Amino acid sequence: MKQKRFKTPLVTINRLSIYYRYLESLKETEEGRNLETISSRKISIATGVNPAQVRKDLAYFGEFGKRGIGYPVIDLGKELRNILGLNKEWPVVIAGAGNLGKALAYYPGLEKRGFLVKGIFDNDPKKIGKRFNNIFIYSVEDMEKYICEWNTRIGILTVPANFAQNIADKMILGGIKSILNFAPVYLKLSHGVRIQNIDVSIELEGLTYYLNS
Amino acid sequence: MKQKRFKTPLVTINRLSIYYRYLESLKETEEGRNLETISSRKISIATGVNPAQVRKDLAYFGEFGKRGIGYPVIDLGKELRNILGLNKEWPVVIAGAGNLGKALAYYPGLEKRGFLVKGIFDNDPKKIGKRFNNIFIYSVEDMEKYICEWNTRIGILTVPANFAQNIADKMILGGIKSILNFAPVYLKLSHGVRIQNIDVSIELEGLTYYLNS
Repeated sequence: MKQKRFKTPLVTINRLSIYYRYLESLKETEEGRNLETISSRKISIATGVNPAQVRKDLAYFGEFGKRGIGYPVIDLGKELRNILGLNKEWPVVIAGAGNLGKALAYYPGLEKRGFLVKGIFDNDPKKIGKRFNNIFIYSVEDMEKYICEWNTRIGILTVPANFAQNIADKMILGGIKSILNFAPVYLKLSHGVRIQNIDVSIELEGLTYYLNS
Repeated sequence: MKQKRFKTPLVTINRLSIYYRYLESLKETEEGRNLETISSRKISIATGVNPAQVRKDLAYFGEFGKRGIGYPVIDLGKELRNILGLNKEWPVVIAGAGNLGKALAYYPGLEKRGFLVKGIFDNDPKKIGKRFNNIFIYSVEDMEKYICEWNTRIGILTVPANFAQNIADKMILGGIKSILNFAPVYLKLSHGVRIQNIDVSIELEGLTYYLNS
């Protein structure tokens, strides 16, 4: 299993998240709550992934479904939770108490998925000691210490580009193994640290390229 | 050219954005400003893309570079601007005046790349009529009208998941052709409308999967 785990490409993992999100949304209606099985076709329509891809992705982790009957909703949900690591709580830190850091601190989607923001870090004395959504803003000087103390392995970077490398290095010294980076800059990370970059400008340029005809 | 344009995969376009971002960052130092040519190796080190891939990506759009000399910095920058559609200004609307909408309205990276946020739309009477970063917050009822009036083709969705489909439909009626969607939901869009999804939870789950071993 462990062997297989590390071979799974990220795009597949991201689709599993999408399937899981859909299964979770079923709980919001009575009809959905009463659903015992679900077909790959139904998952396909609700997620925009083609049905063959749905079947292939879910087969990757073992035989969940039965031909003609579909997947058992509760078991599939549980399995996806386990695969995605959502069966536990993940302490998270945010570096940067700007507007984006604030938006993330208030985003209910994080806690809902088990991502608990333990603290926010900034270098601005006017912000240190305040709170966003009841989460304390600490001095960035203490970040390494708290990351270690909270046993945090996930860090979210929302600092300006010119600070990002330095703050990422501090995070890693504290014990961070995975960084979600919003700073529009390429970060050089030590071996074994994973990074996901979210760059709004790059996403928009991916759209304008196709408009620009 | 037009034929070729539509065949270019998005991952390539995103890397072109990364190269362009790097070239722009060169202007921040005197050494960078004096640089006449740049090698694929140097671009590679600064962006994390391997040198062969850099050469392949840039060759895709014609022969910029000369073997042993490298790419002329100014011409390459200009060419990337043109390819990415950054040689013009793009009016943009934001739907949702929450914390994320606010963070985007204040994000200097948008205007820097030619994305001008013309207006923000919300359904909350307490927010309508106020401003974020001097950008007016309008009633969502008037969104279609303003999108049309401003000739806006790019919309950013930061509304809650249960409103997202309805607001996206309204955007498209107004004339939006490309949507950057932050709502954690799959949107069904009419033919010819492009979408880029940014989902923080999915990105984090892409990280926890690999931590969960």
